[in-house]
Order: sequence, then C-alpha cells, then structure tokens
Amino acid sequence: MAVGETQLSGTSATAVVHVGLLGYGNVGVAFTRLIDSQAEAIALRTGLELRVTRIAVRDTDRERPGSARSDAGERLCGDAAALVSDPSVDIVVELVGGIEPARSLVLAALAAGKPVVTANKELLSTSGAELLAAAEKGGVDLFYEASVAGAIPLVRLLNDSLAGERIVRVMGIVNGTTNFVLTSMSEEGSEYASALAEAQALGYAESDPTADVEGFDARAKAAILAGIAFDADVVASDVYTEGITAIGASDIAFAHKLGYEVKLLAVAERVGDGPVPAVAVRVHPVMVPREHPLASVRGAFNAVFVEGDTAGELMVYGRGAGGTATASAVLGDVVAAAHHLREETRGRAVRRERVEISPISKLLTQYYLALDVKDQPGVLASVARVFGDHHVSIRSMEQIGLGDGARLVFITHTAREADLQATLASLAGLDVVARVGALLRVMGPER
Amino acid sequence: MAVGETQLSGTSATAVVHVGLLGYGNVGVAFTRLIDSQAEAIALRTGLELRVTRIAVRDTDRERPGSARSDAGERLCGDAAALVSDPSVDIVVELVGGIEPARSLVLAALAAGKPVVTANKELLSTSGAELLAAAEKGGVDLFYEASVAGAIPLVRLLNDSLAGERIVRVMGIVNGTTNFVLTSMSEEGSEYASALAEAQALGYAESDPTADVEGFDARAKAAILAGIAFDADVVASDVYTEGITAIGASDIAFAHKLGYEVKLLAVAERVGDGPVPAVAVRVHPVMVPREHPLASVRGAFNAVFVEGDTAGELMVYGRGAGGTATASAVLGDVVAAAHHLREETRGRAVRRERVEISPISKLLTQYYLALDVKDQPGVLASVARVFGDHHVSIRSMEQIGLGDGARLVFITHTAREADLQATLASLAGLDVVARVGALLRVMGPER
Repeated sequence: MAVGETQLSGTSATAVVHVGLLGYGNVGVAFTRLIDSQAEAIALRTGLELRVTRIAVRDTDRERPGSARSDAGERLCGDAAALVSDPSVDIVVELVGGIEPARSLVLAALAAGKPVVTANKELLSTSGAELLAAAEKGGVDLFYEASVAGAIPLVRLLNDSLAGERIVRVMGIVNGTTNFVLTSMSEEGSEYASALAEAQALGYAESDPTADVEGFDARAKAAILAGIAFDADVVASDVYTEGITAIGASDIAFAHKLGYEVKLLAVAERVGDGPVPAVAVRVHPVMVPREHPLASVRGAFNAVFVEGDTAGELMVYGRGAGGTATASAVLGDVVAAAHHLREETRGRAVRRERVEISPISKLLTQYYLALDVKDQPGVLASVARVFGDHHVSIRSMEQIGLGDGARLVFITHTAREADLQATLASLAGLDVVARVGALLRVMGPER
Repeated sequence: MAVGETQLSGTSATAVVHVGLLGYGNVGVAFTRLIDSQAEAIALRTGLELRVTRIAVRDTDRERPGSARSDAGERLCGDAAALVSDPSVDIVVELVGGIEPARSLVLAALAAGKPVVTANKELLSTSGAELLAAAEKGGVDLFYEASVAGAIPLVRLLNDSLAGERIVRVMGIVNGTTNFVLTSMSEEGSEYASALAEAQALGYAESDPTADVEGFDARAKAAILAGIAFDADVVASDVYTEGITAIGASDIAFAHKLGYEVKLLAVAERVGDGPVPAVAVRVHPVMVPREHPLASVRGAFNAVFVEGDTAGELMVYGRGAGGTATASAVLGDVVAAAHHLREETRGRAVRRERVEISPISKLLTQYYLALDVKDQPGVLASVARVFGDHHVSIRSMEQIGLGDGARLVFITHTAREADLQATLASLAGLDVVARVGALLRVMGPER
C-alpha cells in the first residue's frame, strides 16, 4: 500500500493522495484551486482524496500573478529537489516548463518510484522516449495529457481507447492563437496583421507571437502526437515546420471561393507498412475542404482528427489552452495515476522506437500558390513553363488585377514536394515575378 | 495470475487472453476477423495476445450472413451458459443484443469473476445499475463503450479522463440514420420521405425505420449517457422522446434562414446543485446554431458534446455504427479489460444512484413552431392571442402562402415547456388551424 494515511479495506474507503507541485504559474494556481475547492466532490466520485501538500517555486518571495499568497500558504517551498525526494509526496506534478531543471526533476521522481504528471510540451517533444523509459524502469506512470491539446483527452484516446488500433494518420489544430487569427481572417476578411493585433488585444496572442505564428508550439505538439500514434521516438527537430505569417486575406478569399478553409495543421502519418513504420510529420497551413470536421473548428479551440484502420475517422475537440482547461487535463491524469497507485498497478507500458522520418521532399499533395507578377505580355506563358519544366501540373489558375501588376493564384494537381519547391525556386528567379506569396497544401481528393 | 498460458515475468512477456464471444452477427464477425488478423500487431503494441476461443450462437447450423463458416470453425457452440462458465474463457464479449438472455449471461459471467465487454444499449439502458453493481461485487470490469456511439470513445472520456470533472451537460448526435436523413434534407432540400427512402436505399436506414426515426435508439443512448455523466441510475423510460417524422423541408429552410441546422439530439443535463443531482434527459429535434460544433456533424456520423465545469466544452466525433467501427470499440474495451486482468486490477468502480428526473414540463428554452392555417381575416390575431394567453412570447413570425391556406412559422422567446404544450393544445382546437406542424426546440442565446 503505497498511498496516503488511510489503511484501505475494500473499495469503499477513501485513499488520501499527497500531490507535490513543481511550478506555480497560471496552470499551477488553477490546479491548486481546483483541488482545494473540489476535493470533496472528487473524493465522492473517485474514492480518492487529493491534497496538494507541497508547492515548489524558484523564488518563494515573489508574489504569484493572480494568486493570493494565502492560496499556497505553508505549502510553498524553494527546494524542488527536496519536494521530489520527500517520502510524503505520492505524486509529482511538473508545471515548471522548459527542459532543465524540469527533466532532471522528472527523472528523479520516476527513479524514486513516484508517478509524474506533466503539461510540459518542450520536455516531452525532446526527451519523451527517455522519460517514458525511465517511467517503465521505475514501474510508475508518466502522464502528459495537458502537453498536447489542453483539456482534450487525446493522449488517453490514442494510448488506451485505440490501443488495439492501427493508426494511419493524425491531424490536429493544436495551436489556439493561430486558429484564432485564421478564424478572424476567414470570418471578417481581415489581413494577417490586424487579425494578430486583435488576438493580442484579446489575450489570445502574446506580445511576441513568434512561437505561435511560426508554428514552433505546434511543432512540439506534432512530435508528441506522432510519438503516441506510432509508438515512435519523434522529436521536435524531426518536424518540418511552416507558420502562417505569409497568408493574406486574398488567399483566404480564394480558398473560400473553392470551398476550403485555411487551417494550421500538425500532421503525423504512417508511410509504408511494417510494425515500426516510417513516419511523416509536419506543421504547415492547409486548405481544408469545408465539409471536413476540422474546417469548422473556430477561434481558439483545438481539435485532433485521427484515422484508424478499423475505427475509421475520429475527432476530439475542445479548449486547447487556458489555466482552467489545462488544469482539468492535469487533474484527469492525477486521478488516473492516483487510482493506479492505490491499486498498485500502472497504465500500459509504452516503448518508443526510433523510426525513419520521411522527409517533406517526398510529400505528394495538391498545392495552392499565389504569385505577384508584372502585368505585361507573355508573363503567364513564362510562369506556366516553369511549372511544366518541373512536372507540376496546374489544375486551375486565376488572375486578379493588382494596380500595375497582377496576382496569379494556382491550384496544382497532386505533385511531389521536391518538384514544387524546385518550381518555387525557379519562379523566384524570374524577372516578371515580383513576389512569391503564400504556399498552401490542399487536403482531400482533387475536385 | 488470472490470465492465460504464459507465466509472466516482468512486463516484456506476452499474456495470452482467451475471449469467449456471445453472438455472431455483423459486429461479432467483424470483431473475430479483427482479432484473428491483427493478433500479432496487437500483441506487439499491448503485450496481450488475444484469442477468440469460443463463439456461442443460438443455432449452430445456421450459416451466418457475410461469414464463411470456416471463420468461426471449431469455435462455434450452441450453449452460451457453458461458454460463460468455461474456466478457460478469460473475458466474455456479449454481442447478443436485447435484454434476455443477454442480462442473465452477463450477470453469470460477472458472478464468476469474468470481465464482460458489451455493445448492448437495450441492456445498459434498462439494467445498467444492476450490472455495474454486479461487476463491483464480482471485482471485475464491465465495459460498454460500443453501446453508445460506436467507435467514439465516449464512455472512457467521461469515466476516466473527466473523472475529476463536474459535468454540466452532455448533448449528442447518437443516431446515424436520423442524422443521415436530416443532412440530406439540409443539403438537398428534400422532404423527409424521400430522404428516408434514399437512406434505406443506401443501407443507412432499415426497411422498418421506426426505432431510429421515432428516437427510440437515441433514447436508450441518452439514458446511458446520463448514467455515465452523472453516476446516475437513469433508464430508457426516464427519457422524454420525440422523433424526426414531423419535420419538413420548409422547416429546415426556415432554420437555415435564421442560421441554424436541425439535429436530433440526446440531451442529459444537471438541474440544481448537490453531489447527486436532479437530471433532465430527453431526445428531440433541435435547431442548432450553425457555429456550434454539433451543427457540422454530417451524414451518418455521430458526435457527443460535453460541458464540464473546468474542462469547458469538449466534443468527440466519429462513426456511430457499422460492424468495423463497433468492433473497434469492443476491441478497445477488451484490451483494457485484458490489461487489468493481467495486472490483477480493474477500472474505477462506479456506483449508480437513483436520481430525481426533472420532467420535460419544466424545460426552459426557445421554440420553433409551424402552423398551417386558413387564409382568412383575423387568423393571425386569434393565433397570437393563444400564445399570449399562455404567457408564451413570440420573438419572430413569418407567413408563407400555401394554396388556399397559409403556413405560419414562429420562434418564441424563452418559455416554459408546460406553457408551450398548453399553447399547442389550444392552437389545435382553433377552427382556423388546419394542422400543427413541426415543433423544434432552439439551442443557444436568443438572437
């Protein structure tokens, strides 16, 4: 009996579980308040009496934003390592963020036989395989539901519900900021810069939005998704990444005209056969057919679409961020880990194999491309010739007047990414091309 | 060590788990084929070697549709009770359907300490509390993921991921047939009868569609959803139920005009406070605002929308029916039960309390109502007076010419169901009213 003060007899007794918290930012405060206020209701539902008994912060003197010091009270301490090794702490919740010291603290907790719950996407997307191996060695749970898509129970879906399923592809809207910006552009016709400013004013984007709009946040989540879907050791640097900064109002208007919405997707898909597959994993904007469930995910919401061999198409949708939503996901993991502690068991052990990462150059898809050109005779012929030279076949083209120039927008038939990139490079070198604009990959069958 | 032939040492050994199958219809055949063909891949992912070793059918001589007899082979037997008590069977999968003998067989299996996986919505929606109590007494799992929404992992979401969450409301599109019909009506402008005929021709509706179009299938699922969401003993007869047969093309056209889609929803919601809540649970068509995620669930797909206190809004989406999708959900449950057997543990015990069922008469919502009237002076005044007499306030009204009569469509402000029903009764008694048409409840804030 590893848990708490109460000696259990039968299933009706309540087990007391002591939670040690590393980090006390927004999510930590929300999580602590959630447990402090809901402990009784949680005990009634789960038979587990959860208590946050220690909270480690770097600087015990600094007032936490949005948190009266009295919330943390006596529980606050400055020594994270001591918390992790404290025998009275049953479960460690890591909400520090970043790689070190989070990684060392998590490894120490797992080595000490303590289950760990974390919301740390940087850590999981760089050291996931190492941490999962340490959890297996320690014989304890490492849960990270909150690291991918906030309150959406995606990790549990893929790991447990679909444990017997051969996953073919996972596609997710996993960054609320960029989806908020793209939704504003779609619904209000606004340009990128003003949609971003609106998102910043409303608190959906940070003052330095780089990590979101360049796709870096989604990249970490794509690596985690690929890892879960394919039991694969995929890290963030494996993920081909493009952001949304090149997309303009005219690109979205054109997408609408053809029946698409533009979304920033994290995609992980199986390439080839065999038990340990090659995996293609990437983040970039996609033209999503309006009938596809991902097309109707609006605002700051997240959603992940999963295709399995027998389950078919599944999607989970919910709030991707926010202290309360994330705290709810952390709590779900803590309840599961506490239940396992009490039962002296653990979740399904996962071993991550290093897999072949299929490079973006091998991707086969349709493309949308916008090109600003000089408005003079022969332009279209010379541009079209470049596509043909690289074996990229054009499905449809439209020309829009643009002052003394013109904008050409193309949709290609299915082409190879390497050929498309070679086309882009040649186009950029043409005298008549003033600017190579947005490049969007197009989802779905050719229409 | 309760499982299989292999003596386990450490986590790397494979445990052999013998599955006994009750019933061999479409789902049973799909499930058996799935395990027969995927056993190796499943073992690699989960460490569990699943084998279907016995299959009980009522008539061993009858050839199963879509299944070569050789699929079942030596495993086929006619004695379900013997299968349940066979000590070599580790897990019982119940796919017989209906209440008896399924109920007695499941109770016998649980009493014998065998985990049970079932896809049987009739059984769960009449005897769920009794079966869950028997599972707790037997110390084993009773899983029923496939009984609610096919391949969608809804039960696990509510039971596990949201174990610490206070659920406020669950709303689901849980019947593929009616959603297919309503989608056809919405997208093709067709009338109910021709959309139903199309669904029948395509195999999405049965030749006797009563159970689907009258909402009886959704009613059973609503009871199960309410049970899981609120740990409540809710049965099918607690569920207020209306089907879709009164809806016409003009109702859907009017809904579109106001920015809504029409969906048949199963709704379970918490009414009042307290740990054991009063629950309102009902099935009826709803006008869903086009921006709501449920509005874009098309064709035969299912989706369930969950509102929690801290997780916020979540939705899961997927295939609600079909042998393969359902078999996938059954397999997910079998893997979980087998993992627990091997670990000599079980899922969270659930106790279902009988709760107060809040009657439909107390519902507060907006309403859409269509009325065919004689086209003569004073009609509108006498109709409007009836609304006023019953304290139902009209938000908007439109009159459509209809040969020698007229159709009036109303949207009310938020009103009490009892008042609305009294209004309907009075309207039906007016000389000038030729027909009371569709009644739709309207979701969302007044606009």
